[in-house]
Amino acid sequence: LPSRLPKVGTTIFTVMSQLAAQHGAINLGQGFPDFDCDPALLDAVTRAMHGGALANQYPPMAGLPVLREAIAAKVQALYGASYDPATEITITAGATQAILTTILALVHPGDEVIVIEPAYDSYVPNIELAGGVPVFVPLNPTDYSVPWDRVRAAITPRTRLLMLNFPHNPTATTLKAADIAELKRILTDTGIWLLSDEVYEHMVFDGLPHNSLARYPELRERAVIVSSFGKTYHVTGWKVGYVLAPAALMAEFRKVHQFNVFTVNTPMQAALAAYMADPAPYLNLPAFYQAKRDRFAAGLASTRFRLRPSEGTYFLLASYEDLDTPLGEEAFCKWLTTEVGVAAIPLSPFYAQPVENKMVRFCFAKKDETLDAALTRLQAL
Amino acid sequence: LPSRLPKVGTTIFTVMSQLAAQHGAINLGQGFPDFDCDPALLDAVTRAMHGGALANQYPPMAGLPVLREAIAAKVQALYGASYDPATEITITAGATQAILTTILALVHPGDEVIVIEPAYDSYVPNIELAGGVPVFVPLNPTDYSVPWDRVRAAITPRTRLLMLNFPHNPTATTLKAADIAELKRILTDTGIWLLSDEVYEHMVFDGLPHNSLARYPELRERAVIVSSFGKTYHVTGWKVGYVLAPAALMAEFRKVHQFNVFTVNTPMQAALAAYMADPAPYLNLPAFYQAKRDRFAAGLASTRFRLRPSEGTYFLLASYEDLDTPLGEEAFCKWLTTEVGVAAIPLSPFYAQPVENKMVRFCFAKKDETLDAALTRLQAL
Ligand SMILES: CSCCC(=O)C(=O)O
Ligand SMILES: CSCCC(=O)C(=O)O
Repeated sequence: LPSRLPKVGTTIFTVMSQLAAQHGAINLGQGFPDFDCDPALLDAVTRAMHGGALANQYPPMAGLPVLREAIAAKVQALYGASYDPATEITITAGATQAILTTILALVHPGDEVIVIEPAYDSYVPNIELAGGVPVFVPLNPTDYSVPWDRVRAAITPRTRLLMLNFPHNPTATTLKAADIAELKRILTDTGIWLLSDEVYEHMVFDGLPHNSLARYPELRERAVIVSSFGKTYHVTGWKVGYVLAPAALMAEFRKVHQFNVFTVNTPMQAALAAYMADPAPYLNLPAFYQAKRDRFAAGLASTRFRLRPSEGTYFLLASYEDLDTPLGEEAFCKWLTTEVGVAAIPLSPFYAQPVENKMVRFCFAKKDETLDAALTRLQAL
Repeated sequence: LPSRLPKVGTTIFTVMSQLAAQHGAINLGQGFPDFDCDPALLDAVTRAMHGGALANQYPPMAGLPVLREAIAAKVQALYGASYDPATEITITAGATQAILTTILALVHPGDEVIVIEPAYDSYVPNIELAGGVPVFVPLNPTDYSVPWDRVRAAITPRTRLLMLNFPHNPTATTLKAADIAELKRILTDTGIWLLSDEVYEHMVFDGLPHNSLARYPELRERAVIVSSFGKTYHVTGWKVGYVLAPAALMAEFRKVHQFNVFTVNTPMQAALAAYMADPAPYLNLPAFYQAKRDRFAAGLASTRFRLRPSEGTYFLLASYEDLDTPLGEEAFCKWLTTEVGVAAIPLSPFYAQPVENKMVRFCFAKKDETLDAALTRLQAL
């Protein structure tokens, strides 16, 4: 049975979550909260399910108009960008589906796609399924900033798409104004599209802004921007996200979307639309997660892990170099899970050619008790 | 902007549903019920959402074990087939996603895929996105039976996959024992995989059996079988389906699945698992829909439409030849929607090269009042 994805196994997030479950470890690996969402959001689903004869039937292919309108209003308020709900916003079955669909819609066989590494593990298989060619540019190893000169050097006449993901998983960096200026400069006189995975848009700390590509007309006119309700509202299991794109790009996106999932869960969409009327839940998110980051970072400071600063996302990278173990990242994470009782994610699977940095990623989207319990175990190391 | 799917527009189901909504027409086009599901199923969702801290977070990538186990038990009971929930069953975001994912996982660029026409409109674009080559075999024009000699003649060394969809949308035919025998014969000594879209498995009428490929060891060992909770439980808007496949095929399926949607709505999965404990809802479905078919067919008999028999699905094909209109199928359906107030689906979009048969498809998954109101309008023609 010849494989379309011969290099791919089971995603590291599944591998580590399964191992954590088997060993009863505290799971700081896969990115999901261990606390529940706002009960008001659950009540909204129950109401939506009982909302009449068609409440549980297909919504329109692009998503419920009320939800698309709520997103348009949010994006206008936060980023000053006007997206037409009819032609420029589509609801997706999560961000991962949005990303595969975008790549299948825009990347032709032989096209090059620039991927900044480390990168989320679905990107490269997605490009390969489309017949595209990933071209890798590593983040600067010292501070994980984007080496824009290397991005520029990676551009060829075959470059179709540049993938961005800020706040960045797994390095927890954000895009600065200077990055935006560089990006604009590099793209001038090219026809390159942008795919901007902004699922952590509402988790940016220390008063930093989220420099969504939606803020910049010269960028958003060539960008497909992806976001996630799962991350923002603590419902990763609902699998609802959305895509913003100019109408011409969106038309191509929808051609593929309709023949991938066709559409997305109706009552969850209706509930999210109602819940979005109040901006407080996402406006409060930076403070909420910053407190968790600070609690976890303070605890890790008394371990032999060495932290990288986390500017955004709900992740934090840490080096275990000072633990003086010969274990590579994946082996170390398995050992940490089975022997110490704390699951983390190795950095290496975020690279096409695994590099060993003795770095692991912790997720701090957890109850304070969970973080404290994990810290007690890590402090004993 | 060069398109990956230059021949594709908006799916006909969306086009006709939008037109029906705009004109307040009775929508017998797109396949969905206009009545609600069992309220017990909605209560099960509400309970599942309140089922603890992780009730709304990511389920395992392949789906909740309880749901996979419930499916395994059903398939064992109905078809005598043993599928291992751990390695041979995966929950999908509906059948459409299952089909694209299967094709992306199994079809390599240049591989041929045999498509029996008329065919559901996502199949061919799915094949094209994978870089595959669709090879068309038309159903026999008289009775829409499968011309197995032509299927055999279409096989080449490049044939990777044969797509089947019985009960068949849109012709409403089923596979007979003789078809299964022919299929087995044709496949002997080939390495061709089967993709069997069986979303109407619980809608087979007049005491006919559903000859699921799962019944036949020689077929199921090479088959990916797709089904849909949306169709079976009147919740098309939930977008939950599933796939059965032998472990080696499923391993390839999951490689793509995890990088397409990753996984599927947790509380809906939990609710479906609980609801499946009682087989009555799907065992009662044939009688339920047969009564609707008979009611609608009886009413149509006093119009100038000429019916084709419906052995399964919730569709029925009808010829409008006797109406003596020069309109082609798509124009006729638009006219019927805007002028008569009844939406139907033209047959032509189910063909890669549109052929005009003066045939339309009606969906009878509607309240009796809805069917009666539509019939009154059609009888006036
Ligand atoms: C889709 S499972 C992974 C969740 C996530 O985004 C992460 O852990 O990086
Ligand atoms: C995915 S919308 C179409 C529903 C359906 O299966 C049909 O109408 O044929």
